[in-house]
Amino acid sequence: MRLIQSAQNMARIAIADGMAPAAIELLENAGHEVVNEPISSDELLKGALSDFDAIVVRSATKLPAEVIAATSDRLKVIGRAGVGVDNIDIKAAAKAGIPVVNAPRASTQSVIELTIGHLLASLRHLPRANRGLREGKWQKKTMGGTELSGKTLGLIGFGRIAQGVGAIAQAMGMEVHAFDPYLPVKIAKSQNTKMHKTVDTLFKNCTHISIHCNLTDETHHLVNGERMAMMPGRSRDGINCGNHIVNCARGGIIDEIALLHSLENGIISSAALDVFEFEPIDPDYVLLQHDNFHGTPHIGAATLEAQSRVGKDIANAIMTVLNGDKCETTVNRDLL
Amino acid sequence: MRLIQSAQNMARIAIADGMAPAAIELLENAGHEVVNEPISSDELLKGALSDFDAIVVRSATKLPAEVIAATSDRLKVIGRAGVGVDNIDIKAAAKAGIPVVNAPRASTQSVIELTIGHLLASLRHLPRANRGLREGKWQKKTMGGTELSGKTLGLIGFGRIAQGVGAIAQAMGMEVHAFDPYLPVKIAKSQNTKMHKTVDTLFKNCTHISIHCNLTDETHHLVNGERMAMMPGRSRDGINCGNHIVNCARGGIIDEIALLHSLENGIISSAALDVFEFEPIDPDYVLLQHDNFHGTPHIGAATLEAQSRVGKDIANAIMTVLNGDKCETTVNRDLL
Repeated sequence: MRLIQSAQNMARIAIADGMAPAAIELLENAGHEVVNEPISSDELLKGALSDFDAIVVRSATKLPAEVIAATSDRLKVIGRAGVGVDNIDIKAAAKAGIPVVNAPRASTQSVIELTIGHLLASLRHLPRANRGLREGKWQKKTMGGTELSGKTLGLIGFGRIAQGVGAIAQAMGMEVHAFDPYLPVKIAKSQNTKMHKTVDTLFKNCTHISIHCNLTDETHHLVNGERMAMMPGRSRDGINCGNHIVNCARGGIIDEIALLHSLENGIISSAALDVFEFEPIDPDYVLLQHDNFHGTPHIGAATLEAQSRVGKDIANAIMTVLNGDKCETTVNRDLL
Repeated sequence: MRLIQSAQNMARIAIADGMAPAAIELLENAGHEVVNEPISSDELLKGALSDFDAIVVRSATKLPAEVIAATSDRLKVIGRAGVGVDNIDIKAAAKAGIPVVNAPRASTQSVIELTIGHLLASLRHLPRANRGLREGKWQKKTMGGTELSGKTLGLIGFGRIAQGVGAIAQAMGMEVHAFDPYLPVKIAKSQNTKMHKTVDTLFKNCTHISIHCNLTDETHHLVNGERMAMMPGRSRDGINCGNHIVNCARGGIIDEIALLHSLENGIISSAALDVFEFEPIDPDYVLLQHDNFHGTPHIGAATLEAQSRVGKDIANAIMTVLNGDKCETTVNRDLL
């Protein structure tokens, strides 16, 4: 009985941009056929997806309206192994009755840890100190830093990642503040975090700012020169710790030209960025050379754990939809 | 009345290697006379301390037996603004009836935060990733890391610093193990930490090791090639996270030649050192150039907060002794 039922529910699933082996195994063990190979734009436009019940992409494969139009009724779900769905026309998919599911939680812990790492690396000058050692210099006297303990951390956006960052910051002795106009009040209250009604008062009260919101018209260049100049530079415990900014969310939320000016005139003491307004960065980008700047090439989700979780989460999301159930990470739910 | 009493108890205090202004203020506000200037070895040998009730040094000023012998009965206490007292002959001081006090707690939080920073910087390749950016390279594909969450952290020594590191590691989702033959069992139990009876089982169970013990004959080269080879490389949650070592305690506890070999043959995936067997480092030291190594020039206590606390702690310790009370940070108590 089981074999027959399994055969009846068997789906053909295209994995266009690769996937963690454990996730493919998960699909195959459930009786599905997995075709793990890239599909070109041409093939997609010629209807290569008509023989598939599902397709999983990362960011390489693009699924615009024309590709969606070239699919048959057989295609029941599109999976994005990751968070951002800018490579998929989710409106066209909804119009065709196809849910688009993603894996928004898989990288949460990885981004939390990277954020704390960047904060500490800034405050204790780790990249610069290491550069000195590699150059054979013992620059103990010029590497004086400050502690995070006793300082005020301001979080822009207070979703899952920011809440995780806040909890670790509290364990290190920081006072946590946040600004998030979209957050239910009771969540903020449960986290022992001081919520601000405006982003300006967040800047006025915090010597350390970390960004954890989406890039939207509203948040584009939200961190500008005027707001950076509002930061107090001196902590509530009387330490002249300066002002520090970290961004592991999305490029474009910080006005990077204003940031460079603020680093140059000392209003900002350190900046650590994992994301940039233009990626990959221009090799001659002057910000990268500033002594009080350090960065990473958008590696927030670049861990074995996050990639493994992405695969499993998306495999489960795909199977939920194929099973006829509602998937809670459906990004075009409201359009369907 | 108060003024007269204050004048009676007024002491002359020599600050030979500088001190935080707030700490000098603390002494002066208590009615003491502070002489804040360097004293040469020659002057010390000629009895420059005979007009002082107390002297505070860091590491620059040396107080060997001959200098102690050249002091008068007036000298009642020697303060070391920091931890290590290798620049003071504490035995000779005890013989002369002079307590030597230090400030062992002032840098605790600073070292805790540096340790967590080094751990995260190793796991997410922060110095190497930043080096790539400065060279104009966008090396996203080769910067894949792992999370701390779900991994097992082994602490060698479980005093105040290690306990603080353990608490933050737990907040990040790590399981904490420790080896400390000198620690009362009840302290270990209260920290939700798995204590090991041998250092070997600690290595066998932990993918991440951080050192927090003193350098003694017993701990010299305690971290050797054989023990590093015992580390599991794979975490209990099945992630091939490799093996990682951090040392923000004292140089010489790790056999650095064995460490370099272990980095070269892949037994150790990353090493981060704030302390070295020979400091300052030889500019041509090959370990410093390894891609999976990063380091800092002994900056564990190099924060504004630690330096300010050192000053206050030592000022209070000095005044405790001058007041005729017992000071709990007297390092030559057993010899007096």
